[in-house]
Amino acid sequence: MEWIVRVNTKTGRVVKEKASREEMRWGGRLLISKFLLREVPPTCDPLGRYNKLIVAPGLLGGSPVTTTGKFSIGGKSPLTRGVKESDVGGEAGSRIAALGIKAVVLEELPDRPVTSVLRIAADGSGLIDMPELKGKWVSETIRLLRERFGDSPGIICIGPAGEMKMGGAGIAVSGPQDVQVRYAARGGLGAVMGSKGVKAIVVDDSAAPPISVFDEKLLREAGKALVQGIMADPKTENRHKYGTPAVLTLCNEIGILPTRNFSAGSFERADEICGDRIADLIAERGGEGRSGTPCVRGCVISCSNVFPNASGKKTVASIQYENIALLGSNCGIGSIDDIAELDDLCNQVGVDAIETGAAIGVAMEAGVIAFGDAEGAKDLVRQIGCGTWMGRIIGNGVVVTGKVLGVRRVPAIKGQAIAAYDPRALKGNGVTYVTSPMGADHTAGNALETVRTINPLGIENQVESSRKLQIRAAILDTMGLCLFTRPPFTKNPDLFLPLLKGRYGWDWTYADVQKMGLDVLDTEREFNRRSGAGEEFNDMPEFMREEPLPPMNSVYDVTMEEMQRIWEVEIPENVF
Amino acid sequence: MEWIVRVNTKTGRVVKEKASREEMRWGGRLLISKFLLREVPPTCDPLGRYNKLIVAPGLLGGSPVTTTGKFSIGGKSPLTRGVKESDVGGEAGSRIAALGIKAVVLEELPDRPVTSVLRIAADGSGLIDMPELKGKWVSETIRLLRERFGDSPGIICIGPAGEMKMGGAGIAVSGPQDVQVRYAARGGLGAVMGSKGVKAIVVDDSAAPPISVFDEKLLREAGKALVQGIMADPKTENRHKYGTPAVLTLCNEIGILPTRNFSAGSFERADEICGDRIADLIAERGGEGRSGTPCVRGCVISCSNVFPNASGKKTVASIQYENIALLGSNCGIGSIDDIAELDDLCNQVGVDAIETGAAIGVAMEAGVIAFGDAEGAKDLVRQIGCGTWMGRIIGNGVVVTGKVLGVRRVPAIKGQAIAAYDPRALKGNGVTYVTSPMGADHTAGNALETVRTINPLGIENQVESSRKLQIRAAILDTMGLCLFTRPPFTKNPDLFLPLLKGRYGWDWTYADVQKMGLDVLDTEREFNRRSGAGEEFNDMPEFMREEPLPPMNSVYDVTMEEMQRIWEVEIPENVF
Repeated sequence: MEWIVRVNTKTGRVVKEKASREEMRWGGRLLISKFLLREVPPTCDPLGRYNKLIVAPGLLGGSPVTTTGKFSIGGKSPLTRGVKESDVGGEAGSRIAALGIKAVVLEELPDRPVTSVLRIAADGSGLIDMPELKGKWVSETIRLLRERFGDSPGIICIGPAGEMKMGGAGIAVSGPQDVQVRYAARGGLGAVMGSKGVKAIVVDDSAAPPISVFDEKLLREAGKALVQGIMADPKTENRHKYGTPAVLTLCNEIGILPTRNFSAGSFERADEICGDRIADLIAERGGEGRSGTPCVRGCVISCSNVFPNASGKKTVASIQYENIALLGSNCGIGSIDDIAELDDLCNQVGVDAIETGAAIGVAMEAGVIAFGDAEGAKDLVRQIGCGTWMGRIIGNGVVVTGKVLGVRRVPAIKGQAIAAYDPRALKGNGVTYVTSPMGADHTAGNALETVRTINPLGIENQVESSRKLQIRAAILDTMGLCLFTRPPFTKNPDLFLPLLKGRYGWDWTYADVQKMGLDVLDTEREFNRRSGAGEEFNDMPEFMREEPLPPMNSVYDVTMEEMQRIWEVEIPENVF
Repeated sequence: MEWIVRVNTKTGRVVKEKASREEMRWGGRLLISKFLLREVPPTCDPLGRYNKLIVAPGLLGGSPVTTTGKFSIGGKSPLTRGVKESDVGGEAGSRIAALGIKAVVLEELPDRPVTSVLRIAADGSGLIDMPELKGKWVSETIRLLRERFGDSPGIICIGPAGEMKMGGAGIAVSGPQDVQVRYAARGGLGAVMGSKGVKAIVVDDSAAPPISVFDEKLLREAGKALVQGIMADPKTENRHKYGTPAVLTLCNEIGILPTRNFSAGSFERADEICGDRIADLIAERGGEGRSGTPCVRGCVISCSNVFPNASGKKTVASIQYENIALLGSNCGIGSIDDIAELDDLCNQVGVDAIETGAAIGVAMEAGVIAFGDAEGAKDLVRQIGCGTWMGRIIGNGVVVTGKVLGVRRVPAIKGQAIAAYDPRALKGNGVTYVTSPMGADHTAGNALETVRTINPLGIENQVESSRKLQIRAAILDTMGLCLFTRPPFTKNPDLFLPLLKGRYGWDWTYADVQKMGLDVLDTEREFNRRSGAGEEFNDMPEFMREEPLPPMNSVYDVTMEEMQRIWEVEIPENVF
């Protein structure tokens, strides 16, 4: 990967630049942070001409190493006003990498409203006007793009929410055979894409020459070791069978499952929406239903699923923990079929299910509809797609929804909805939510894995632990590796070295890898410091410091001073 | 004035504390900044329990000195997230001061939704439940309060917008004989009052003993000199005859009159909405119409008016420049009768006409209604009062409206609508909008008076001038003096000294007065620095740096670096 493709959405000009020596060292999340700090004025309007939407495979993108089809999409977030990187599976990332492209950068704004498609291919790239896609839902958009561009390209697109520049809009990516719809969901990046007038990016790598790697044998062997390490870990089988919903039962037990707008941490109908139940239903109903499907080609974990309705027809693919929690228990909805429909509706209109579930929870608290009203919730998501006033309110996320409806209990930090782990009973996640440059994401340094070693209700060690977890996440997001590849690196962090040597010929030590992770966080933090999105201004919502969360009845009591200590804690030589 | 009245809206407890020696030196805007910095966590939720609503007469409040019935209301702003002081006329300020009260502080939040009235009187103060006021428009609220509390008390209240905690909500104050409705309009303080469950504050000073002043004769003589100075200034007669609308023609001529969502600086129907025209109509129509009425008892300027409809019945009192510009030309509405109705509707539902006019302008740009559609605009304001979804969007101000409706051209700085002087052709106001701790207010350091001495289209001297103007405003807002009393102080700044000596016995020099003004700005700026509302994060909206403003065809081109220089410029010994 050695090209940067810059797309001027005002002039339509597409320029392919050779990556500099420095840029060659960047990938995924690191590349996004470096580009943003270098090129985007930190106080600019996130939906204005100075913001950029950056699509970047990780360093191992396009290689045969498992999970590295995952890639990063980033920009200045309309929600947090700070840096945002959202990583995502699907088919497009490996195709961009296969074309030798390190980053696609959407710049400027069109002068008038347009609905254009960026086609990227070996024979040249350009913007194509496709007004017929205007307002189309995501699956319909993909279908229409297939008609024109065929079955092979990877597709990145937005739904009507992104076109309407809603703060809750995400960016969809087509999965293998278009069964899965994957999402770079968080932070409102769909609105940034919408502001550029780009409805979709079609990535056609059919004529791409094979990528040359420094040492193919070394890379393949390291990739094999990685796979072996992943397969040897007991968590992998569980993930394969039950996917991310596997953690719901644990979250419910330890009392961190967002329930009825974060007013409780366990849900009386958890049994109906947990991983076992979903796997059983999939097996029982047959038809199009599948457990253990991949989100990127060649993933050995394959933690996704295809959730079918009672007749065996696909409702949504994939249904995941975060979405079940926010659209389900957080809205008092306990029917997994209703949740799956809601999730699919979010995918179709093009919004982050986390942000939207949180916003619906707040709307329920305001009395717009009642907790548990699944049909009402579906109607609200459909309204997002239609752009009704209420739809626009919800579609702009939980903070706007809370403001407009006059609700004080708004589960958000730095303008963005809190992920599906109530920080009152998992305090490590609270530290990550407040201090991570990404804000309240579930992938920025998730402390769920620490609940057996660190008391989740206690303050002790949470800051040190979050620091470690955040660096880990930054490394994996830069490599283009899924967070679930972590186990082998925990056993042997030097496994990174043959991967990088094999791919690029770099003679790195593990210390270099870790330095790269720190570089990500430092760069992101600097951007946020300049943009006004610094962590010192964004504490936990007040209600979480005041209202004890049943059943653990704990409040969030890690002080800002304690959390700010995170920048001074000693970092272990090995964070894995 | 020596008492601080603290009202705990959670427990209902009202405590009257003696002001400390330090607090005795504070009044109005200075007191608000000091209390906020001392007592309110800068990053707190503006509508949460840690914010406080502070009502404070100026240092000369309650004295016989002209215009000192004006007083300050403040708190952390739901719009700017920073400090907000909004000063206002009407009857309540002098009554609070007459009761010997330096400040009324509303603290905490009620546990459940309530509609309460705070009665403040010499025989004791307390919260009274008055559910019958729930949702009532402002004039009806005042009428119902008169039924219960009589004609004499001063009344401070909110409309339904404040009760619904809308970011555009202001706080109304009853004028003499309830003819005028005055507004502490800016920054969303009505929402802060609404969050505390306080619908109104009734100030009954009937049993108050006379205030003792240090040297009554000296105070009276200084007051007389002030009045003479005001009357001798040629601007005063103009203000008396035409009020603030007098400036509309000038603003139109120099091309700074907000027109059609700040897309032009002059309006083809300016002649129909200017000061002359309004005065003529008032004279012509007779009936309840009046020019030259006071907003506080004893004001010798009396720049307010009562604007009647064609049958001579009051439509609104008072109609002012800012409101005409934002609700009129900015919405493409050129009928003064329509604008007066719109203005009254804003007063009735309880929103800032500036914020709301700007929000309607953005809604018009989004196509919700057409520019010029006066009936549509009235309907939108009525919808604010009813709390429809669209009403809640508009009622939350221009930034929320822009976000929800996906509009990029949003005339706001730091979350708050820009006042009625387009900064592209009056660059001094741009400097004030960006650097003032208050954000884009018209009273924080208005450069309109400099257009004959400083080129409004040029950059030169704007920063130095804004610095001076901002200090002046801070001094007058702390004294409790109207900005229009400035002329005599310009001639003789030492006129402050006998006023302060006569009232308090302080042996100050003018340098002390100026130090006090600087103290206001420094204190406010420190609060903003800690809250994340620092001026470095809040530049001019991008479209104002890009789109030339007809007819002057200038863009805003004062750089952030140039504006930030304001904190280092040399301050003249006398800013008046």
